[in-house]
Amino acid sequence: MPYFDAASSAPLHPVARQALHASLDEGWADPARLYREGRRAALLLDAARETAAEAVGCRPDELVFTSSGTRAVHSAVSGALSGRRRVGRHLVLSAVEHSSVLHSAATLEAAGGSFTEVPVDRTGAVDPTAYGRALRPDTALACLQSANHEVGTEQPVVETAEICAEAGVPLLVDAAQSLGWGPVPGRWSLLAGSAHKWGGPAGVGLLVVRKGVRFAPQGPVDERESGRAAGFQNIPAIVAAAASLRAVRAEAEAEAERLRALVGRIRAAVGDLVPDVEVVGDPVRRLPHLVTFSCLYVDGETLLHELDRAGFSVSSGSSCTSSTLTPSHVLKAMGVITEGNVRVSLPSGTTGEEVGTFLDVLPGVVAGVRAKLGAPAPAATSPAPSPAPSPAPSPAPRDSLVVDALGRRCPIPVIELAKVIGGVPVGGTVTVLSDDEAARLDIPAWCAMREQEYVGEELADHGSAYVVRRLL
Amino acid sequence: MPYFDAASSAPLHPVARQALHASLDEGWADPARLYREGRRAALLLDAARETAAEAVGCRPDELVFTSSGTRAVHSAVSGALSGRRRVGRHLVLSAVEHSSVLHSAATLEAAGGSFTEVPVDRTGAVDPTAYGRALRPDTALACLQSANHEVGTEQPVVETAEICAEAGVPLLVDAAQSLGWGPVPGRWSLLAGSAHKWGGPAGVGLLVVRKGVRFAPQGPVDERESGRAAGFQNIPAIVAAAASLRAVRAEAEAEAERLRALVGRIRAAVGDLVPDVEVVGDPVRRLPHLVTFSCLYVDGETLLHELDRAGFSVSSGSSCTSSTLTPSHVLKAMGVITEGNVRVSLPSGTTGEEVGTFLDVLPGVVAGVRAKLGAPAPAATSPAPSPAPSPAPSPAPRDSLVVDALGRRCPIPVIELAKVIGGVPVGGTVTVLSDDEAARLDIPAWCAMREQEYVGEELADHGSAYVVRRLL
Repeated sequence: MPYFDAASSAPLHPVARQALHASLDEGWADPARLYREGRRAALLLDAARETAAEAVGCRPDELVFTSSGTRAVHSAVSGALSGRRRVGRHLVLSAVEHSSVLHSAATLEAAGGSFTEVPVDRTGAVDPTAYGRALRPDTALACLQSANHEVGTEQPVVETAEICAEAGVPLLVDAAQSLGWGPVPGRWSLLAGSAHKWGGPAGVGLLVVRKGVRFAPQGPVDERESGRAAGFQNIPAIVAAAASLRAVRAEAEAEAERLRALVGRIRAAVGDLVPDVEVVGDPVRRLPHLVTFSCLYVDGETLLHELDRAGFSVSSGSSCTSSTLTPSHVLKAMGVITEGNVRVSLPSGTTGEEVGTFLDVLPGVVAGVRAKLGAPAPAATSPAPSPAPSPAPSPAPRDSLVVDALGRRCPIPVIELAKVIGGVPVGGTVTVLSDDEAARLDIPAWCAMREQEYVGEELADHGSAYVVRRLL
Repeated sequence: MPYFDAASSAPLHPVARQALHASLDEGWADPARLYREGRRAALLLDAARETAAEAVGCRPDELVFTSSGTRAVHSAVSGALSGRRRVGRHLVLSAVEHSSVLHSAATLEAAGGSFTEVPVDRTGAVDPTAYGRALRPDTALACLQSANHEVGTEQPVVETAEICAEAGVPLLVDAAQSLGWGPVPGRWSLLAGSAHKWGGPAGVGLLVVRKGVRFAPQGPVDERESGRAAGFQNIPAIVAAAASLRAVRAEAEAEAERLRALVGRIRAAVGDLVPDVEVVGDPVRRLPHLVTFSCLYVDGETLLHELDRAGFSVSSGSSCTSSTLTPSHVLKAMGVITEGNVRVSLPSGTTGEEVGTFLDVLPGVVAGVRAKLGAPAPAATSPAPSPAPSPAPSPAPRDSLVVDALGRRCPIPVIELAKVIGGVPVGGTVTVLSDDEAARLDIPAWCAMREQEYVGEELADHGSAYVVRRLL
């Protein structure tokens, strides 16, 4: 039963399991105590810190263990902002950062600071020069992920770090997705990581603050972990995290090559096997184990459910899979379609056979979901006159149709649009009425994919009116 | 090799180990995901929450898992204060709370709020009526531990909770030390706990917020754990924490009775076997497994070191064992002597034989440390004329002596005082010059123990002058 969601959480690496078991007997005492159980715990903690620091490429006294990657990011942002409060209260980040970074920015704004989101291109990458232009004299901190968690695109960290360093602004790199694959090069100032992403146990994050970076930990004082991570250290988990990081690094080059080939196979096959699909993210500068694609006219939640029934665990950035009904901010920032989105992230050890089975199963599953939703057949999506669809077009001149999709969720508005576009002549328009947040992204993205013209959005009763002109 | 510091961290309970191993395979995925690995993780998390809630005596939706007891306290205080910001920014706490509570109060003060510390009696307990008098119209939150972590004294939580409830002020109970022994009764509003104190793994704390209590989590938004504990949940550790809480509770009554008898044996024997010793904390209303005593004329660090060499792991509230040179705020608030302090906290399963060995070893260890420090022999501490001690008294009338202990640390100033007190007539005074923080506490406490009069403290060059009048 293949699990293809390593980017959410990787199964425990055998080395992590072994190290955890071994250190349960030695690592439970308070490492600040001077008696033998405390000394043993402190020795384990010191050794783990050295191992982790070596893997990160920093000094052991620059690295502390937090209780999660999220906590590492929260502490990194709040500590760095506070340490440079005299400079100002402005933060720069990319538009595709992890929610822990976005929420930290929102917290800053709520407290009276401000932030600038640097846009990304259609592959999900920032432009370092554009990033540099967002830096201001009052910028206290800049944040950039090493690679995107939803689409796998690597960010130009080295170039951006250089620009930040020249501007005297510390750069925090969220390395959660990439740290298992290798150290982050370049002149960054702070770094955050998360053990359960590389096969370590949950409950361990890394926070690295380079010497010389101004840093003022927030919250109540706690003497542990250089005052940067409150709470009793979870030493067995820390030992397991460090040991597994070393282990995955030892295998990283060979495993990256192997998984890159498997992902390449998925990237190539998906477009061939499934009609109306878009593979998103940079095809070259990307994480080795991750590929994301979006299937038109598909409800992400049903797709995930059907793939789960078929034995495949994947995730999705589609709004229809989230309780908030907000589509992925990553896909939104990239300007790509958000419906029917599937992220496949292969854990270490994934076999070619498992990938092959997935590719065997996928086309039927997508077709089944589309059929259930009444999506246009692949042929029907090429504009050809078709009988009037339901809901019936409102009375209007022949060269313009209105589709009322109010109250209907992703992917229905796009399905209705695709169904009726053939009903207007070339040059005519279809107006889709929708109150679904995803329609605002998916209708323009559909137009780009289908080479139709997206005219624009107008305010309408109870929602928006999206106007599309038929070009072919 | 007996480990007698369960109050710092208890060794892993066998049930915790078993549950941890078992759930490593089932609990590593993201419980928010809908695929089977996620659903399995969510089931484990739900079951653990129900188990923990049952043990605490609350509803499952009132309880979240944090990454430590410290984090639970920090979040409880900041969330409750913020939730009742309109009422005011005043906090009430006892003078003997855990540092996580004290540091939370300091954070409030630094942000413009204020707090009142309710004093304790010589046993370490607050008076509920006095506690109630500290409540003000602008009090947003009150904090009281269920039992003290350094001396084991139980606090009158039920009575205090009642008074707080009547005043409309939520009471946060720090139950870290007592939760393994039983639920906290009474009308409290919030509760914090720590799994590694009851034999669960590190990395798991409990935060309970009763329905109807105003609570506004601080820090960046995170949807997990009802928005009250950021970061990916460590489900295997949470499962182990809940399972071990249930297990220790099943054994609690019998084990408490057994350990209470062993602690009673230590309480009785220490005074008989070791001269110049004071057992501190309430003799009846106390944790079953914990006893604390202070040995006059003893350096706590050396004592701990020698006990460790003899195979016993204990801790101490003496300043000479801490890097800050600040004596325990608990002992200070109780007004008892802080030097030569030893806390013995027995883990479950401690045998009578282990306790017997400890009592066999202790007198010799204490005598050895005293001899090394040149402490007065027990007989010499009863006032009898003795030759002029060194450092030599300054030229002064025969009925007054000055001892210069500047630059010398605990317990030297008290040792010097004890050595020379016999050198002045009854009614005469000894003035001890000292710049040691512990002397401020230990000289008055020594006077109380020895029934001499503590006249007071005066400012002196480079330190303080402590004046003692010989009464017998």
